[in-house]
Amino acid sequence: MSPVTNARLLFREIPSELPDPVSTFKYDTSENIDIDGFPLHGGFLVRALAFSLDPYMRNRMRPEDTEGDMPAFLLNKVITGFGVGVVIRSESPDFLVGAHVGGFMSYQEYCFFGDAAASALAMPALGLTVLENPYNLPWRYFVGNLGMTGQTAYYALKDVSEPQKGETIFISAAAGAVGLMLVQLAVSQGLRVIASCGSDAKAGLLRELGAAHVINRKTDDIFVELKKAGPIDIFIDHVGGITLEAAIENAAMHARFVICGAVSTYNGPMSDAYGVKNLWLVNRYRITIRPLVVIDWHEKYLSEFYKTVPEEIAAGRLKCYESVYRGLQSAGQGFKDMLTGASTGKTVIVISEE
Amino acid sequence: MSPVTNARLLFREIPSELPDPVSTFKYDTSENIDIDGFPLHGGFLVRALAFSLDPYMRNRMRPEDTEGDMPAFLLNKVITGFGVGVVIRSESPDFLVGAHVGGFMSYQEYCFFGDAAASALAMPALGLTVLENPYNLPWRYFVGNLGMTGQTAYYALKDVSEPQKGETIFISAAAGAVGLMLVQLAVSQGLRVIASCGSDAKAGLLRELGAAHVINRKTDDIFVELKKAGPIDIFIDHVGGITLEAAIENAAMHARFVICGAVSTYNGPMSDAYGVKNLWLVNRYRITIRPLVVIDWHEKYLSEFYKTVPEEIAAGRLKCYESVYRGLQSAGQGFKDMLTGASTGKTVIVISEE
Repeated sequence: MSPVTNARLLFREIPSELPDPVSTFKYDTSENIDIDGFPLHGGFLVRALAFSLDPYMRNRMRPEDTEGDMPAFLLNKVITGFGVGVVIRSESPDFLVGAHVGGFMSYQEYCFFGDAAASALAMPALGLTVLENPYNLPWRYFVGNLGMTGQTAYYALKDVSEPQKGETIFISAAAGAVGLMLVQLAVSQGLRVIASCGSDAKAGLLRELGAAHVINRKTDDIFVELKKAGPIDIFIDHVGGITLEAAIENAAMHARFVICGAVSTYNGPMSDAYGVKNLWLVNRYRITIRPLVVIDWHEKYLSEFYKTVPEEIAAGRLKCYESVYRGLQSAGQGFKDMLTGASTGKTVIVISEE
Repeated sequence: MSPVTNARLLFREIPSELPDPVSTFKYDTSENIDIDGFPLHGGFLVRALAFSLDPYMRNRMRPEDTEGDMPAFLLNKVITGFGVGVVIRSESPDFLVGAHVGGFMSYQEYCFFGDAAASALAMPALGLTVLENPYNLPWRYFVGNLGMTGQTAYYALKDVSEPQKGETIFISAAAGAVGLMLVQLAVSQGLRVIASCGSDAKAGLLRELGAAHVINRKTDDIFVELKKAGPIDIFIDHVGGITLEAAIENAAMHARFVICGAVSTYNGPMSDAYGVKNLWLVNRYRITIRPLVVIDWHEKYLSEFYKTVPEEIAAGRLKCYESVYRGLQSAGQGFKDMLTGASTGKTVIVISEE
């Protein structure tokens, strides 16, 4: 077979504010790959099925020499992140042809792995693994509710927030990828859910899912609403800034706050972020503030996660909400929609269904 | 014996900013007490020896109907707080004549207790107890290094911050009441101490006590200094605001932050407080932020505290630094000096040495 195009997603420009859907990434089709003739040297070749778009990636859009959580995207190089694919050729005994794999990948249609750790940015928890899918769920779920997104939600309701049945949990960005799964899990575990989101349509969905009190952050006063609906025993935050300040003001005694994200601060320098003024109330209400970074909890909960969540989804007790974009050329728009709240649930780029 | 003056400290005016040394309190000598003839009705009479002045009292200087940590001071009524005294008459089997007692008291020279809980503001941990003093230490120490102050420092270096020998601890307001004891305890426990304070004289004292790096918050850039001296494994904060923000920026991975106080925010409305912008770094550095309120830890550590700290002080291994004011009429000045950092160590009002 003659070489085919290997479309790739390059990082073209460091955004100063909200990433521009056109200029941030470059959809590049200049590279060809001879799928059958490509020498494997003991490695394996993966055809991509789906890639994840996640808010944490915004932090990687920075100058290479600036410190950050994870390595910066390199200008004019292929970006990396969570993906899922199928092995189409292999000389590796651990990754056989036909196996489905998930983990950190380069965002291109065909991805060669000299070994499984190749794209893992030296973080073992991000390395490629073979996926099991006994319920025949869509493979794209493995970058969403069955991937980092779902794992974050699942871990948040474990000892990191110490939930007790009947307690009140506040979930910000509740119609986002992690939020929608969190709301469902929290309701099913007998927690009373307060949810915030950015539109009436999202508010409606959250009510349908069982949220007791929904706040539209664009039209409601979050301080007033939390005062009505609180106090808050648990806060799972994806927003930061004024949302966090309002939650602190409305905390119950011995509240547990879990910081999953701070999307309100991602699109500008930290010096422009909203400053939280009432941290002293941490003492008054005996609030503990903890970080939640998904890779920290895999060892403790990943196998439990895979034992329970796929079955819940297959049985329809846990729904997967997605904003699906088709092809790597749609990544720029998908990323912007995710950060601005124009999309609902998990943002995923589908390359191929199978 | 004929009645004698029972001088009292009344709360006269709610300060809008820094409490004024003259107008905030009223030193009142209009009340007399017939010490010998006073009917006890089963209670007991205490002659005050010393009273504590503490930053938390600033929060009590607010309108009666405003929520706060502890009940508001009532206008034109005697203020309450930690005191120590000696029982001079008693009909109570638990508080015999000659016993020394400590706990929440009214700030007046002679204080009648119908029962020991009378001044405890319905918080059992504040109730009056009989003090033991096997090393014959000055009784005023029982509102300082042997009281809430010392207990706060002691508890901060227990599981609340999980200190490991060799770790770097940053202590803000390190020349304050809790700070000076903390620095000594931390050095003795093999921690590397970074200390911040407000004058060169205090900086000198902190260096003498073994602090490895001292920051004068008035002349140094705290961000620059912490970058030099950090990263910080443990932060015990009494200041809040920009000091907390600088500590977050310079946290080590898995840092533990303990919020003891936030004196930078006490003298104005919370809406004027400095807003901490970089809370997102809680995730990057995996920081846990915990409150420390001394009464929460008595059950676990108070008996250990009394078994160890008095002996350390008696042996001279732990020094008590105090700013001693004489008589209730000096309370206004003492309180202001404490909040502005004009004083060093524990601020105590001595009524009588014995």
